[in-house]
Amino acid sequence: MSHPLRLLARQHRRWPLPAARRSYSVRVPGDGSSDVTTVADLKEWQPGRLVSDVQVCGWVRSVRKSASVRFVDITDGSSMRPVQAVVDKSLAADIRPGAAVRLTGVWHSSFPRSSVPATAELRVNEVEILGASNPQTYPIQNKYQTPESLRAISHLRPRTPLNSTLLRLRSDAMALVSQFFFQEKFQQTHPPIITSSDCEGAGEAFTVKSGSPSEFFRDPKYLTVSSQLHLEALAQALGNVWTLSPTFRAEQSDTSRHLSEFYMLEAEMSFVQDMDEVMDLAQRMLASLASGLRLRSAAQELEKHRLDSRDPAERLAFEDLVDLKELQQRWRGLMAPTRWPRVTYTEAIEILEPVAHKFEHKPVWGSGLQSEHEKYLAEKIGYDEASDAFLPIFVTHYPREIKAFYMLQSESPPAQGPTVDCFDLLVPNLGELAGGSMREHRLAQLEDNMRLHGLEVPTQRKARSSDMGWYLDLRRWGCPPHGGFGLGFDRLLSYLTGVPNVRDVVPFPRHFERCDC
Amino acid sequence: MSHPLRLLARQHRRWPLPAARRSYSVRVPGDGSSDVTTVADLKEWQPGRLVSDVQVCGWVRSVRKSASVRFVDITDGSSMRPVQAVVDKSLAADIRPGAAVRLTGVWHSSFPRSSVPATAELRVNEVEILGASNPQTYPIQNKYQTPESLRAISHLRPRTPLNSTLLRLRSDAMALVSQFFFQEKFQQTHPPIITSSDCEGAGEAFTVKSGSPSEFFRDPKYLTVSSQLHLEALAQALGNVWTLSPTFRAEQSDTSRHLSEFYMLEAEMSFVQDMDEVMDLAQRMLASLASGLRLRSAAQELEKHRLDSRDPAERLAFEDLVDLKELQQRWRGLMAPTRWPRVTYTEAIEILEPVAHKFEHKPVWGSGLQSEHEKYLAEKIGYDEASDAFLPIFVTHYPREIKAFYMLQSESPPAQGPTVDCFDLLVPNLGELAGGSMREHRLAQLEDNMRLHGLEVPTQRKARSSDMGWYLDLRRWGCPPHGGFGLGFDRLLSYLTGVPNVRDVVPFPRHFERCDC
Repeated sequence: MSHPLRLLARQHRRWPLPAARRSYSVRVPGDGSSDVTTVADLKEWQPGRLVSDVQVCGWVRSVRKSASVRFVDITDGSSMRPVQAVVDKSLAADIRPGAAVRLTGVWHSSFPRSSVPATAELRVNEVEILGASNPQTYPIQNKYQTPESLRAISHLRPRTPLNSTLLRLRSDAMALVSQFFFQEKFQQTHPPIITSSDCEGAGEAFTVKSGSPSEFFRDPKYLTVSSQLHLEALAQALGNVWTLSPTFRAEQSDTSRHLSEFYMLEAEMSFVQDMDEVMDLAQRMLASLASGLRLRSAAQELEKHRLDSRDPAERLAFEDLVDLKELQQRWRGLMAPTRWPRVTYTEAIEILEPVAHKFEHKPVWGSGLQSEHEKYLAEKIGYDEASDAFLPIFVTHYPREIKAFYMLQSESPPAQGPTVDCFDLLVPNLGELAGGSMREHRLAQLEDNMRLHGLEVPTQRKARSSDMGWYLDLRRWGCPPHGGFGLGFDRLLSYLTGVPNVRDVVPFPRHFERCDC
Repeated sequence: MSHPLRLLARQHRRWPLPAARRSYSVRVPGDGSSDVTTVADLKEWQPGRLVSDVQVCGWVRSVRKSASVRFVDITDGSSMRPVQAVVDKSLAADIRPGAAVRLTGVWHSSFPRSSVPATAELRVNEVEILGASNPQTYPIQNKYQTPESLRAISHLRPRTPLNSTLLRLRSDAMALVSQFFFQEKFQQTHPPIITSSDCEGAGEAFTVKSGSPSEFFRDPKYLTVSSQLHLEALAQALGNVWTLSPTFRAEQSDTSRHLSEFYMLEAEMSFVQDMDEVMDLAQRMLASLASGLRLRSAAQELEKHRLDSRDPAERLAFEDLVDLKELQQRWRGLMAPTRWPRVTYTEAIEILEPVAHKFEHKPVWGSGLQSEHEKYLAEKIGYDEASDAFLPIFVTHYPREIKAFYMLQSESPPAQGPTVDCFDLLVPNLGELAGGSMREHRLAQLEDNMRLHGLEVPTQRKARSSDMGWYLDLRRWGCPPHGGFGLGFDRLLSYLTGVPNVRDVVPFPRHFERCDC
């Protein structure tokens, strides 16, 4: 070893890895092991004495003036509500809405007592402007802004209290579904985003091109419209698997429920004996998610502040959301201790026929359920009087011809015609939240289905190179009965938060003609 | 409410949600609350008595014949090694390698005693073939198959013991990084996959097209080459953020370290005071991941079976991996209780110059480090004699001109020229595992950097509609000093498992001219 190397080796042994060298927005005095590291923590912190040298980094949400001091509301994105800092007028010249600051001072806190409200504020003796702001040009105003206007500035939109809380709730939801599937011993997987097939019947696919004139991957390739087929391959090796992956549809539909880029939560189980097991998994997962979210701050704040808000701008923002009473009915339904209602498509048609006059499209056995039908069914069947809750409902066993080629044909179809073992999970207002099925695991029957759906059936010889040959291969060797479901993660968050437009629960929405940033 | 609805409402209240209705590959008698639900669990199960009615679903790995019985190795993907079932010859006719079966029988288990080895086997009295197999055509043979040949059948490859274990280790790693960032109060985010910009200098981007002749999103759009810019926007609202997202490069490089579609683990921190905090975070995250993985079965099995394997085919598969001694040196380095070595680029060049004759490319200040340089530095500086470990090393402060436009210029550059506050994390054999930097948070300096790198600087008026205008916007209002890093998740798994080719740690590899399935 040459000299400089030996020197370096000696040097790094002198550096223990310091637990305290962490980048947090809030620092309180001590050895760095304190749990008080964010504004959310600080707001709850009641050390029972004055504490000096408390440092808060964050963004200025508002500044209120009195004769000698400024009351500055600071947020670091960890909580919907800011923490208050009291700054002497002489120090506050550059503290403007939108600025990033570091404030150091004395933390005053006390519990509320009879007539005296609680105190929780930082009395500041040192101000550092980390990033200046010009409130005249700052696009995020401390007043009501419509969801439409905020969508035009998606790179700044997360700085509003409501939008940052929605993104924290999204983060909580990711952590909770990861935990659920981990405990259930499902393996998390990364199925491919670029795929060979655009023929799954799940909608129009985007094409992927490289800069060079020849095909980068030899044949045309697409952005995945669903990870299901690849999950089936992985389930046949690993047992039960899941993924939360981006999925793409090039549909020109401009609705509040559709995105061109969205996240799908998909699970696939090997060795399923009947479809009830798949529906039970979907319900258990959603119930576990809703119960877990209720313990986390983002969901708690959303509910609490809707009840207690006195800020007119905030109240207007909340008015854009689904009525709080209905939202609570949704949550109660998700956490219900009973099985959600399960009706067959044929029963659903029988329920719809007597009230056909209510709909634009006539409910007819053999046609798909329209969105208006789905919403009617979800509201009528799902509403549980006893608990004043909206239970999500499963509609099962749709006609074979209107469902995907990979679904398993039902053994005891109704008189009207052949059906498949599949389900849609419907909720009020939104319609379809998830869909699942048993998969056709027998080669000959799968090939029949493909022909029925007008798909080309690859021969075994070409199997591996052709588009769907690999999928048929899965049936050639050791394919057990299996099933799974896919759930629109963004739609679920929209349902849980009461945000009517799915574009407002994703950070950077992509849809027809819009892909900002 | 009409009659059928009332009926349904009554029905579903009669259905309690059954905890036992779960789809597991292994069932033992009882109320369904047993933790023994996979082959991995069963292999460890020692109830201290014979237990009948034990059911195992899985795939047949091999069948050995004796005069009256068949010894059948069954796996469900939960463990590298199968469980043994003993089946009477008369029942075993259709039990063939590759088949999916359900076997029911009596579980025999005992601890090892002096001369008697441990027992753990299912004596089968009922056989059900769930999916037949033809061993003559089954592409997964119970013998050594090269990694290259397995890559040609990526839909079946996860069925081999090594590949399924690698995918389980990948799942464990996802769960552990989620847990780490959750505990550190980072928000997990979903930055966009389809983006407006291809000018980040991170390599060639794929273009996204829809079927229609006009542009679906008005302007050309691309698959993301890095989530960093969008993470910066989110960090400026939420504080500390992270993501594990797919990332794409249309480079025609055909190496063992590159994929066209790969996963990047990226973290971004607001309010960073100096770059050491970013490096400390990267080290803490990797140390926490490695320590966590060691407690999980996939990593344990990989090490154990490399030590004890007596199966010739398996030993050949292990020989394709990095030498076990070196692998252990890597793990010890990742978990080292000291800070990993940090050298500046300028120091690195001083170390390389005296040994320039060893390299194809001459090490010159101002040029990028070549892969051969990186590997030399990682091996020489990173090797710690005292602990016989390879510590990853940070090389910091590269010349400004060869690094990305968004990096913060260093305050005290060396005599040779201006540098930026950035780092690469290097490891032996693989080279660059991660890269990070402080970001230029001041508008004027960022615009200077863009000009220096030949990028068009958008005017404020056009800011929001133009490609990079939104990114400059982030500097206009409240941009604090911040920094972060990105880590190649697939490369990390390759480093942790000793799998030399990154194509073998992802389920469906995509690279130049290859996108099967």
